[in-house]
Parts: sequence; C-alpha cells; structure tokens
Amino acid sequence: MSTTFVPVPLWRRAVAEFLGAGLLVTVVVGSGIAAQRLSPADVGLQLLENSLATALGLTVLIVIFQPVSGAHLNPVVTLADRLLGTRHAPAEIVVYLAAQLAGGIGGAVLANLMFQTPTVLATTDRLSAGNLLGEVVATAGLVVLIFALARTGRSAVVAPAVGAYIGAAYWFTSSTSFANLAVTIGRIFTDTFAGIAPTSALWFLAAQLVGAAVGVGLVLLLFPNRKAQP
Amino acid sequence: MSTTFVPVPLWRRAVAEFLGAGLLVTVVVGSGIAAQRLSPADVGLQLLENSLATALGLTVLIVIFQPVSGAHLNPVVTLADRLLGTRHAPAEIVVYLAAQLAGGIGGAVLANLMFQTPTVLATTDRLSAGNLLGEVVATAGLVVLIFALARTGRSAVVAPAVGAYIGAAYWFTSSTSFANLAVTIGRIFTDTFAGIAPTSALWFLAAQLVGAAVGVGLVLLLFPNRKAQP
Amino acid sequence: MSTTFVPVPLWRRAVAEFLGAGLLVTVVVGSGIAAQRLSPADVGLQLLENSLATALGLTVLIVIFQPVSGAHLNPVVTLADRLLGTRHAPAEIVVYLAAQLAGGIGGAVLANLMFQTPTVLATTDRLSAGNLLGEVVATAGLVVLIFALARTGRSAVVAPAVGAYIGAAYWFTSSTSFANLAVTIGRIFTDTFAGIAPTSALWFLAAQLVGAAVGVGLVLLLFPNRKAQP
Amino acid sequence: MSTTFVPVPLWRRAVAEFLGAGLLVTVVVGSGIAAQRLSPADVGLQLLENSLATALGLTVLIVIFQPVSGAHLNPVVTLADRLLGTRHAPAEIVVYLAAQLAGGIGGAVLANLMFQTPTVLATTDRLSAGNLLGEVVATAGLVVLIFALARTGRSAVVAPAVGAYIGAAYWFTSSTSFANLAVTIGRIFTDTFAGIAPTSALWFLAAQLVGAAVGVGLVLLLFPNRKAQP
Repeated sequence: MSTTFVPVPLWRRAVAEFLGAGLLVTVVVGSGIAAQRLSPADVGLQLLENSLATALGLTVLIVIFQPVSGAHLNPVVTLADRLLGTRHAPAEIVVYLAAQLAGGIGGAVLANLMFQTPTVLATTDRLSAGNLLGEVVATAGLVVLIFALARTGRSAVVAPAVGAYIGAAYWFTSSTSFANLAVTIGRIFTDTFAGIAPTSALWFLAAQLVGAAVGVGLVLLLFPNRKAQP
Repeated sequence: MSTTFVPVPLWRRAVAEFLGAGLLVTVVVGSGIAAQRLSPADVGLQLLENSLATALGLTVLIVIFQPVSGAHLNPVVTLADRLLGTRHAPAEIVVYLAAQLAGGIGGAVLANLMFQTPTVLATTDRLSAGNLLGEVVATAGLVVLIFALARTGRSAVVAPAVGAYIGAAYWFTSSTSFANLAVTIGRIFTDTFAGIAPTSALWFLAAQLVGAAVGVGLVLLLFPNRKAQP
Repeated sequence: MSTTFVPVPLWRRAVAEFLGAGLLVTVVVGSGIAAQRLSPADVGLQLLENSLATALGLTVLIVIFQPVSGAHLNPVVTLADRLLGTRHAPAEIVVYLAAQLAGGIGGAVLANLMFQTPTVLATTDRLSAGNLLGEVVATAGLVVLIFALARTGRSAVVAPAVGAYIGAAYWFTSSTSFANLAVTIGRIFTDTFAGIAPTSALWFLAAQLVGAAVGVGLVLLLFPNRKAQP
Repeated sequence: MSTTFVPVPLWRRAVAEFLGAGLLVTVVVGSGIAAQRLSPADVGLQLLENSLATALGLTVLIVIFQPVSGAHLNPVVTLADRLLGTRHAPAEIVVYLAAQLAGGIGGAVLANLMFQTPTVLATTDRLSAGNLLGEVVATAGLVVLIFALARTGRSAVVAPAVGAYIGAAYWFTSSTSFANLAVTIGRIFTDTFAGIAPTSALWFLAAQLVGAAVGVGLVLLLFPNRKAQP
C-alpha cells in the first residue's frame, strides 16, 4: 500500500486518510440504507446491493488516495504496515489513526444526512462466537492480501484486489466482514442496515486485532522477503 | 481524460461527445425501462439492474471515445478540465457542451423508440435536501476521481474506474448520482424509471455545479502538481 | 481482434471459431435455462443472472481463442474485419462463417443435453419494431467497440471490453442484444429462456446486418486511420 | 499457473496450497450458507450471491498464492500441469494433492464453525447424467483456460480469468461447476447450500477426471507450442 513515491506532507496524507476512511463508511452506510429502503422483502438482496456497492466504492477510494497516503483507510493496515513495511515514525501513526477514526465517524454522519436519517447510536446486536471468528478470518485475509501484493511488487493491483476481497468477504464470513477498526467505529453512529451496537463493536475490534496478528504471522510465513513495493 | 495524443479535428471530437453522452443516456434510460418492466416487484432489484448496466456501459463508452475526444461525456468534466487540465479555447468548450446536451436529449429519444414508449417530459419529483446533498457529493467525487488519475499519469484506467464509481454512487448517494449535466437534462425527456421532472432537474444541475466546485478544490488540495496526463 | 501474431493453420482457427461460437451459445442458453428454473418469480432477475454469466463467459472465451483465430465468434465481426481490418481471402471467410454457424447450433444442443431438455425449434416470438431497432443499435455498438480498440492499438483489452458491452447491452437495448448471426441461429434450437422463433430470428439477422453497416460507417468516421492492431 | 520465479521451498508451497484450496472451500460453503439464510425465497438469487462471492474470492486467492505455489488449488490443475507444463517430481505432486485435499476439508469445517452449523456429511443428491456432462464441460473448460494462458505468456491474468470463468460456469453448466477434486471432497463435509452427498461426489470426481483429459487434449490441439509461461 506504500506507493508514495514522492514525499507527501503529513497534513496532506492525513486529509487523504480522513476523506478515504470517511467516504468508505459513507459508501457502506449509504448503500446499506438505500438497499434496506428499496428492497424491503429480501435481506440477502439488500446485502448483495450493499456488498457490490462497497466492493466498487472501496476500489475507487484506494485508486484515488493510494498516491497520496498509501490509502490505508484502516488502522489495521497502518499497524500492520508498521510491522511489515515502511517504518513510519510514531507521530505519523498517531496522525493516520486519528484521521481514520475521525473520518469514519464523519462518513456515517454524511450518509445519515444524505438519507435524512438521524445520527444516533446503533442498536443492532451482532455479537456471537461465529461472528467473532468471522472477523478474525476476514481481517487476517485482508492483511495477507495487501502485504502479499506489496512484497511481490504488485501494489498497482491493490485497489481492485482489495475491492474484490471485501465483496467476497461480505458473504463468506458470518460477520459480513467489517475488518476495519475505523469503519467499525463509524458504523456505531447509524441505526440502519450497516449499524452495529457499541458493545458488539468493542468485541469486533478485539477480534480484528487478533485477526491482524494472525495475518502478520501468515505474511511472515509465506512471504518472508521484504521486496520492492511498487 | 485528455488523452488525445494526435490532433483530432474539432468536428470529429464533437461527434464523439454527441454519441458518447447520447449513448450514456440511452444506457441509463433503456436499462431503467427494461428493469422496471421485468422486475416489477422490487425497486431495489430494478436499481441493481440499472446500476450494473450503467457501470458496464459507461466504462465501454469511455473506452471507445477517449482517444477521439477525451470522453468527457459530461459538461462538468469539460468545465473542470478547463480549470484543471487542458486550456481549451472557449469555442471548443461551447462545441463540447452543445454536443453533450444535444446527445443527452437524443439518447433519451433513442431509448424511448427502442422500448416503444413516448418521448414526454418526466413527472418524477426527486427534489429533497438529502438528494441535493447527494448530487454535491456524487459530482465532487467524480471530479476528484478523474483528475486524481489524470494528475498521476493513470488516464489509462479512467474507464473502469469511472464505471465502478458510478456503479457504487447509484447506491451510496441518496439521489442515485446523476452527477452529469447532459445526462440530467436528457433524463427529463422520458417518463420512465430514470426520468426526472424539470423542476427537480434544475435543482440537480445547481447542486452538480456546487459539487464540481468542491471537487476542483479537493483536487487542488490533494493533487497540486499538474503532471503528465497519460 | 486480429491478434494472430504467428501464422496459425486455417484448420486450427476453424476449430477455435467452432468451439468459441459454440460455447458462447452454450453459455447464453445454459445460463438462461438455469436462471429460468431457479428464479421462477422474476423475469428481470432471470435476465440479470443470464446477462452476468454471459458477460463473464464471453470475456473468457475471447481470452482463450484470441491468440488462435482472433476470436471473432460472430459472422458480423468476420465480415466487418474483411472491410476494416485484415484482408482475409474469401475461402478463409467461408471457413470462419461455417465454423461459427455449426458451432452456434452445436452449442445449443450441448446446453440442452446438460440441462436434459429436448432440442426443438424455439417458439418465442421476439419480433417488434422496437426490438429490430435494438438489434441495429446493439450490433453497431459492438462493431464500433471492436474496431475502435483495434485501430488504437488496444486489442489486449478486447475481451473484458466486449464482455462488459454485452453485459450492458442485454439491458439497454429492447431486444436483449443478440448482435451475433451465429448466436441468433443457435438460439433457434432451444425452446427455453434464450430461444427465438425462426421467423423472429430472420428479422433479427437482417437488423444485425444493417447495424453492422452502421457500425462500419461510424468506425470510418471516428477512426479513419488503420493503425497497428495489437 | 507456474509463475514461481524464485525457488520456493516445498513446505511453503504446501502451506499455500493447503490455505488456498481450504479458503476456496470456505468461500464456496460460507457464501452458500449466508445466501441460503438471507434469501430464503429464491434459489436463483442464492446461487447469484454464491457465484459472485466465489468468482471474486477465487480471483483473490489466486492473486495471493500464485507467487508461492502457482496457486493450483485443485488436483485437476496439478495433474494437468504434470502433463502440459512443469515436470514436477512425483513427490511434489503427492504433497500438492495431499495439501489440497486436507485444505478442502478444513475449509468446510471453518465455514461451518463461522456459521455455527455442525460438520456432518452432506445429504444433497446431485447425481444425474446432465450434471455429469456438466462437470466434464466445466473441468475441460477450466483446463483449457489455464493452459491457454500459460502457453501464450499471459499467466498474469490467470486470476481474474479463472474467477470470471467459474462465475459464468456456475450458471451455464447444469451441475453449477464443481470442477475441482479438492473442493468436491470438501463440500461433502457440510449439509448446507453447497453440500454434495458422498455418492454424488464420487461420480463428480470421475466426471472431472474425464473433463480434465478432454481439456488436455484440446490444449494440445489448439496450443501445441509450450511457450514461456509468464
């Protein structure tokens, strides 16, 4: 993900991470609201609409922001990149995480505004052992994908590959694959299709960190060489 | 979008913009009619069919016309390109806009003819504060995407990226993302799934111009360097 | 489409056109039967399943056969290529057309066998002025797309571009875009979702030839230079 | 598929084949369970959700594991590669097949755990002459596609091409295209949407081997030259 060939000032990268993570939540929440309203009879059809919009939208967001900030858009990616890729300074990491989290919440608010629904805490309980295992699998897979590409010189295809991954993971994991700390927190702030109750969200965050650790381990096992990234 | 490497005569570029914007409206309106007739029970399924056809069709139209005219197909893109990209002469801009608008109306008529439905003014009221915010977001995102690619030497992927963007934006914005002055005007001339009443259309056009200005500002903020375009 | 860099014997190219056009009909007819059986309640959903399978399958067939025969898979393309591209000898053209037509019929029979449905003439009447206009538009667009790519050195993306085009054209034309003489004839031989009654088929063939002529004219207008093809 | 440019130790390749084939079954089984639960009213919609998730997920798995093991993920591919491609030692082949089969079963168990459904033998009878013909066609097509790409120097597009192929083949074959010995065996271990009863599975395996032989024959006929693979 670190295809920042020319030094980009940190403030500009922070804006990119804020907008990118934010608009990712707008895509997830907004398309969820549209799906819920327009296809009331079939929850699967709602998820199909929501997942296709997310896969396409996420691909485009990475395409836009990759040259500016590396398009992490996800604290999991920033933290894994600290371990596996670029040795960012601690201050950079704090700025990235803060921008992603602020963006995530702002993105939910923007979706709520467009669809004229109030910004309130979600009430959807998503907590179950199966869903937590789903988040571990989803997050591990995301980390393996991103760093498999970075370590084999294929960062140019990160955008469509990550979009395709999330499009599939909405379906093959039981949790519909949040796999992103900023998105999970953002989704607390809408009581619509994509919402998640705060208690469930806390458990999801923990599972994502476990999944990230599993993913980092698998990257070290399968792709031990830290090759050129672009 | 300005990948016209050899000088192409203005009349040929005008034909390309007329056909491109026109067939884009044919794709939007035609697939909307087909969806409405074939999936009467679920509006969300209609929008899914309409949005997938539009995403694929728009991608193909940009692929075809990009080498001829740059495949703007949208007055918003031509105007933003005046500010951010090629310094077109005023006469060129007038020709582009006229070709796009004439194409947009002709494209709606062609769809109506194929589906044997009369060409009349649309009666679908789409006016709401949420939808206008949706158009601002949709148009700003489109401008940022196109010029992010142009300013980082990735115009070769504009076609699939813009197609994917519109496919997602149908869902994540509340307005289903018109984001195109010529398409908005063309969609006045069909009273079917994709139609928009003239009064709503006027407000949508205003919101799109606001969105374009926001998009130009974000491009200048995030991608200040005017790099080689192809 | 003429990316045959090394001379391939005519018999091998004929096998490729036979298999390619044949399996294209198998994809169209087979996925139509599956859709009809599995989604009985919504014709639009059937067409969505049928169109997505066809878009993906057609892309793959062009990928496979392009290096062998150019992957015309369609008499319209072979005839247009005679006018716009490679100066094939008359004997070659006859062999291509014969292989495509035999393949088209064989492909329908194979689909019928897999789905254990009899090979009989179709009874679906598809004749209307709107549908004939649809075939003109669909075929003209296909010819413009293929030769726009060939004449601008982008034959490497013909496969996904043509797949995306047909995926969209199923929806934006009223006729669901047959746009292929061999496929139209093949689809006479199954009385299932994709079938077409012989009388309708004859009219569709005529409309496709008109559309091909329109497409050739547009190629000469928009892309007058016969550039290198790969 | 053999794009292993640097020598990778056999144990690491085995891990890749275990994880890749395993997660492929997780994608197939998991998305099938999600589809079945969320779209109970329409089996076609379930298959649409299942097939799109599989097409995207399979593409991503090949992207990840291709540089490590060649991403066979399928005994059919390993055996065909022995005949048409790399002259692997018999021990390598045994290791690949064992890893794929163990992965296939493990992947079904993982999906069952995430969706909190028991791991039991499937009871879905899928045996019919039409379905066996479907498996022959599906497997032959898969082999032709992979080695057409390998023998024309296009292994870089194997991932999206194979994903697109399977996405189409779910629909155009009557059997929904298992086309993979390890996936077929894995799918015995879940009594859900994607399950297959052991007796049916045995017949499917036989049909897949016949299809693989047909595919190898077609590769030798159409692509006689063993060219450079990447």
